[in-house]
Amino acid sequence: MPELRLNLISKEWVIIATERAKRPKDFKSRIKGKVTPDFIATCPFCPGNEAKTPEEVFRISDGDQWKMRLIPNKYAALYRDLDRVRRNEGIKHVISGFGVHDVLIETPHHNMTTAFMPLDHISDVIGIYKRRFIELYSSTRIGNVIIFKNHGEGAGTSLLHPHSQIIGTPVTPFQIRERIEEAIRFFDMTGECLLCRIMSEEKEEGTRVILETEHFISFIPYAALSPFHIWVFPKRHCGSFSDITEDEISDLALNLKTILAKLYLGLNDPDFNYVIRSNRPRDAKSDYFHWYMTIVPRVSTTAGFELGSGMFINTALPEESAEYLRAVDLTQESLSI
Amino acid sequence: MPELRLNLISKEWVIIATERAKRPKDFKSRIKGKVTPDFIATCPFCPGNEAKTPEEVFRISDGDQWKMRLIPNKYAALYRDLDRVRRNEGIKHVISGFGVHDVLIETPHHNMTTAFMPLDHISDVIGIYKRRFIELYSSTRIGNVIIFKNHGEGAGTSLLHPHSQIIGTPVTPFQIRERIEEAIRFFDMTGECLLCRIMSEEKEEGTRVILETEHFISFIPYAALSPFHIWVFPKRHCGSFSDITEDEISDLALNLKTILAKLYLGLNDPDFNYVIRSNRPRDAKSDYFHWYMTIVPRVSTTAGFELGSGMFINTALPEESAEYLRAVDLTQESLSI
Repeated sequence: MPELRLNLISKEWVIIATERAKRPKDFKSRIKGKVTPDFIATCPFCPGNEAKTPEEVFRISDGDQWKMRLIPNKYAALYRDLDRVRRNEGIKHVISGFGVHDVLIETPHHNMTTAFMPLDHISDVIGIYKRRFIELYSSTRIGNVIIFKNHGEGAGTSLLHPHSQIIGTPVTPFQIRERIEEAIRFFDMTGECLLCRIMSEEKEEGTRVILETEHFISFIPYAALSPFHIWVFPKRHCGSFSDITEDEISDLALNLKTILAKLYLGLNDPDFNYVIRSNRPRDAKSDYFHWYMTIVPRVSTTAGFELGSGMFINTALPEESAEYLRAVDLTQESLSI
Repeated sequence: MPELRLNLISKEWVIIATERAKRPKDFKSRIKGKVTPDFIATCPFCPGNEAKTPEEVFRISDGDQWKMRLIPNKYAALYRDLDRVRRNEGIKHVISGFGVHDVLIETPHHNMTTAFMPLDHISDVIGIYKRRFIELYSSTRIGNVIIFKNHGEGAGTSLLHPHSQIIGTPVTPFQIRERIEEAIRFFDMTGECLLCRIMSEEKEEGTRVILETEHFISFIPYAALSPFHIWVFPKRHCGSFSDITEDEISDLALNLKTILAKLYLGLNDPDFNYVIRSNRPRDAKSDYFHWYMTIVPRVSTTAGFELGSGMFINTALPEESAEYLRAVDLTQESLSI
């Protein structure tokens, strides 16, 4: 029988359509079938084409080659050289398109993917996220910083070469302010951080947990909005990603690689997004919010119902999806951790 | 230069990425290239296959054939025969999957689409929406009713045969309550309905209007979340779709056919969703909310940024998209109004 589960972070009811539910393996992507080469002469992110990108902000070197490059997005949604100016005229509230839109080219290898990267390489990627997150927030004109990755066309990118994006907006999104307000309400009623509470109950119940390591726990939440929607929670209560320690970075890399490798094998390299959800650095000590990562395989399509209601219909049972991913065997040489 | 525009209904800033902006015709769907037959023997919605669907709720007859059939969804997300029961256990808030999930088969013709339907046929479709909307809300166990259509695989349906869906949920979605609260705040500050105000300013400015008829105005809003996102507003202030009059139904049919025909020709039959956004019948007289329709062509993909921030990046300039659609010529015989 179907049931509605309340997602405590979005405060939206999710319809878990259990009878409609597909088996976990039914969410497998169609076989891509193409072998992608390590280098493509026309790819602007491949070595040798550095002049095709805007001038880099910085690079991490590897001998006389580069290992990673942080560059301004050539097709930036926001421009870093503008003033931040707001005008209000009737219904027209407008702010000039000031902001920062960076791209991190994660590796020179065109056909690499996080699931196959060495752990220390993933740690370096996360280290750059941290560095840039702090740098962007040092401007008082930046209201929010979003760090995310789009993998595959269904996740919003046509550029296969592994890259992530960092966008600093001149405003704080309504959704983010509102989720923080809801977390404050929970704190007021209980004296607890909502996310610590969710984590401890998920851990105790265990049926939706995919991986637990020293510093992180990765699970499919009770009221997951879509099939295989995964949360990676740091165990240490901390409001901002800016405070992640070196040990935690290594451990997050382990969680990220493991989860993405399990998705790669279990769901046949699905398109996915991941995103870091965090408060600002100056709210790192906040009692009521807790940064985390979300990984969303794009294995379903939102339709008119989701559009009109804000609610989601999830045709996968979170407990079953988690069990399926726990069972994915990573001992293949290239994916072994 | 890009700019951020505030969407007054969602209260979310939209990045209008103007330099990145594609020309309107760049949003055209790839040519589908397939001629679809009028009848497919294996389609459960085609005439002769009535036994393949659940027992119909009602039908509109056309001689000894049917013109439309309202049926329970065979793969219902919610079940109409359950009790509505809520349990709370720690983080687990759950309600039994009670609700109604109907499908309206809009025509016996497999290859028909709203853009090509006679106006009186579209009026009949809207009339059934109204009838069912009121019927479902007559149950005190239904918190909200969403009426929507998914057209094409990118919009969440694999079934081509023209159909709409009506879902009655046992809860009122958070998003809907919240938008109403925001509209109340606007009313408190100004004494005006937010949607009446948006409509009058859009009408006065005119650059984003696609069609204005006696009772409706169709436009791309100033802060449209995605390319060619269209709002169809009734001019008469009314909180609930349940109060639509016969005259207004005919006029809404005209707006719907015109807009969908312009999308069909101008963007090459794009996948789309449409949805009716309305308060409950008992709130029809409310001062501060106003029902309307949204039409969303699925010509872009949301990615990690949208997921993480709730904000949208729109790569089409609303004024330019509206101008493009205004110029689409509907004098082709089959599409003429």
